[in-house]
Amino acid sequence: MQRIRSCEVSQQIGNTIRVQGWLAQIRRLGGIAFVVLRDGWGSLQVTADAAALAPIERANAGPESVLEVVGQVQANARAPGGFELVTPRIEVLVAVTEPLPVPLGRALAKAKPNALLDHAPTVLRDPTRRAIVQLGAAAMAGFRRGLVARGFTEIQTPKIIRAASEGGANVFALDYFGSPATLAQSPQLYKQIMVGVLERVFEVGPVFRAEPHATVRHLSEYVSLDVEMGFIEGMHDVIAVLRETLVEIVDALAERSPLLELLGAELPVVPARLPELDFVAAQELVELATGERVVGEPDLAPAHEAWLGEHARREHGSDFLVVTGYPIAKRPFYTHPDPARTAHTLSFDLLFRGTELVTGGQRLHRYDELVAAMTRAGIPAEPMAGYLEAFRFGMPPHGGFAIGLERLLARLLHLPNVRMATLFPRDRTRCFP
Amino acid sequence: MQRIRSCEVSQQIGNTIRVQGWLAQIRRLGGIAFVVLRDGWGSLQVTADAAALAPIERANAGPESVLEVVGQVQANARAPGGFELVTPRIEVLVAVTEPLPVPLGRALAKAKPNALLDHAPTVLRDPTRRAIVQLGAAAMAGFRRGLVARGFTEIQTPKIIRAASEGGANVFALDYFGSPATLAQSPQLYKQIMVGVLERVFEVGPVFRAEPHATVRHLSEYVSLDVEMGFIEGMHDVIAVLRETLVEIVDALAERSPLLELLGAELPVVPARLPELDFVAAQELVELATGERVVGEPDLAPAHEAWLGEHARREHGSDFLVVTGYPIAKRPFYTHPDPARTAHTLSFDLLFRGTELVTGGQRLHRYDELVAAMTRAGIPAEPMAGYLEAFRFGMPPHGGFAIGLERLLARLLHLPNVRMATLFPRDRTRCFP
Repeated sequence: MQRIRSCEVSQQIGNTIRVQGWLAQIRRLGGIAFVVLRDGWGSLQVTADAAALAPIERANAGPESVLEVVGQVQANARAPGGFELVTPRIEVLVAVTEPLPVPLGRALAKAKPNALLDHAPTVLRDPTRRAIVQLGAAAMAGFRRGLVARGFTEIQTPKIIRAASEGGANVFALDYFGSPATLAQSPQLYKQIMVGVLERVFEVGPVFRAEPHATVRHLSEYVSLDVEMGFIEGMHDVIAVLRETLVEIVDALAERSPLLELLGAELPVVPARLPELDFVAAQELVELATGERVVGEPDLAPAHEAWLGEHARREHGSDFLVVTGYPIAKRPFYTHPDPARTAHTLSFDLLFRGTELVTGGQRLHRYDELVAAMTRAGIPAEPMAGYLEAFRFGMPPHGGFAIGLERLLARLLHLPNVRMATLFPRDRTRCFP
Repeated sequence: MQRIRSCEVSQQIGNTIRVQGWLAQIRRLGGIAFVVLRDGWGSLQVTADAAALAPIERANAGPESVLEVVGQVQANARAPGGFELVTPRIEVLVAVTEPLPVPLGRALAKAKPNALLDHAPTVLRDPTRRAIVQLGAAAMAGFRRGLVARGFTEIQTPKIIRAASEGGANVFALDYFGSPATLAQSPQLYKQIMVGVLERVFEVGPVFRAEPHATVRHLSEYVSLDVEMGFIEGMHDVIAVLRETLVEIVDALAERSPLLELLGAELPVVPARLPELDFVAAQELVELATGERVVGEPDLAPAHEAWLGEHARREHGSDFLVVTGYPIAKRPFYTHPDPARTAHTLSFDLLFRGTELVTGGQRLHRYDELVAAMTRAGIPAEPMAGYLEAFRFGMPPHGGFAIGLERLLARLLHLPNVRMATLFPRDRTRCFP
């Protein structure tokens, strides 16, 4: 008998079917027990009398035991999902006899944050936790779908590299067959090289930042959704593709509405034009509103980004705000300065619900200007020889951006900590599980 | 005027259009010059007289200079692609005045293999080289498409881990904020954990092997296409999904037939049932045919895999051969032994055109058996606590496989070396460009 998934049971009313999954819960009501079976796609109620339940009792099988059940599908409006299995024959495939380190279900809300992370291998089985994983998959799929439709090619670039891709700090060092190497802080150098090959490229992959600080929005390893495109007229071509990509991601997430409902998440509306604010104008607004002295600072503090997020919602009805023209002091060497005011750049951040989600901009594309910028930044040319070769031999005006997948999920789902938006987070004190 | 891509020019006959790209070649014939412009999607011939060519001459702009051309589209059966731009106005956006380290085009065939790799940032621009990148993207897309359609969820698992995922050898060590860590040799441990969460998962991502030997089929960093699935009846459920996944990959590649033609590649036909051979029977065949003593060896040598590839083509008309039942001595600790003969396993390799392309099999799923296997293999339990937690709390029978993307491309395209199938290969002596 073919195994039926929980999501297929609604098409099986009246049939005797075989299901498999994990024992999520048993509720007893008089002589009847309601066994909730969880599989990879959802849950199903099995209604069992004492005789049917006997194999579970005999094996002392508790939550997370692996079961196989053969029974008849019956509609039942009071059962979760509207269906139940009756007259079941239950077989215990794997008996779990010890209690979970962190009980799943409603009890999860009371667990300590660190316990959730320490025991991720079992905690992720909770439907509310695994929904985050499923939505992450949908976001990646939407990202790729939108870019492929626009002529972008997916690439996979090396993670073990010689030079730091974003400058000297926060780099994991590695012994590479006796020579020093680093883990890529981003695919930046390689995606730019590949603009010379394919014009439009994207990558979904891990990036590594040895972040010394513990914050709710930094990870030492995270998934970066990277885009780079050639023959742009300017930064706004990049922002336009970013907007279209956000639309595609939101559309892909909308296809998973039951998961969004489960998590009480509301999808943002991507405006027809992303509201924009110049960096200095943004600082002036924050200064005016908060009384803090911020004009002249080289970057926005998280609290100021949060204030700007509120501002965008109030003034533009938008969850998104593009801040343009960041000062050159805090931007990486490859950032294109603004010819009209050279202390600022043709770069931007996208704030999503008041948190920096995306960094992007136009890049330097002329070899001489790039070499001069590297010299100013004190970046040695030798380990960058491959990168520089692309520029010696003709690079067009280009730019791109990177979306942090975990931050996107964290803000989308109002998670208190970006660690909750990844399977097995890595930070200064955590390299497990 | 909107920029037109080379692949869109056929719809623009008679129109005056604007194109941008790289100067690939200039051929002069009397007073006329044929300028081949390459962009991210193909090439286009621009037919220019001396006056139109003047900007190129003035800038001394050689191959790989970045150009913009405005001209009229005209059909010309003798032009590459059947179209050309006439009465052009050429603008040099970036002039390249030095010769390429490795000239592109026909000259590429004469370049030394190391020169191709050393100068990948420019060499990849050659249409024959970048076609490999584009086919790699198609293979990844086909892999994902097929698995999503079968209820698999995409995951991204950590690459910085505490324990070696495939055992102690060939591991890159890392200093992780003062503690020892390693780079994941595969997502094995995590994809198994995630079977407990989502039953069916896949991952496309980098894996890291500190391979001490220089061979034509090993890389220190490569892209692994990983699959893991729960509630299997046995190893053949895994082989069935592998077969369907190969079909999806081949279908996705078939959509890029111009690239395959450019490279003279022939797609394999995936048989309705993959031919299978038991490991010992395979050794006996090799021994009989070659006279070499191989029965009793714990693994197949590359030369024997090549012979078996010929055998599969001869006997089954198949580019694929599944070899099952590998001895337990050479398989990782998580491999499920064959209950019928415990020195062998429920694992397999898939040979593609005589090279190991895929390794897979059924895994141990019972906690006690897994712990015993780890003890036998001398693997300490402490760094594996998270992995073991998944098994303490109910894991179903499961299995999976991993396809090496670069090997797939190398065999598909008859490349002499797997290094040619990746953008920027990493090996014992190469961590650049």
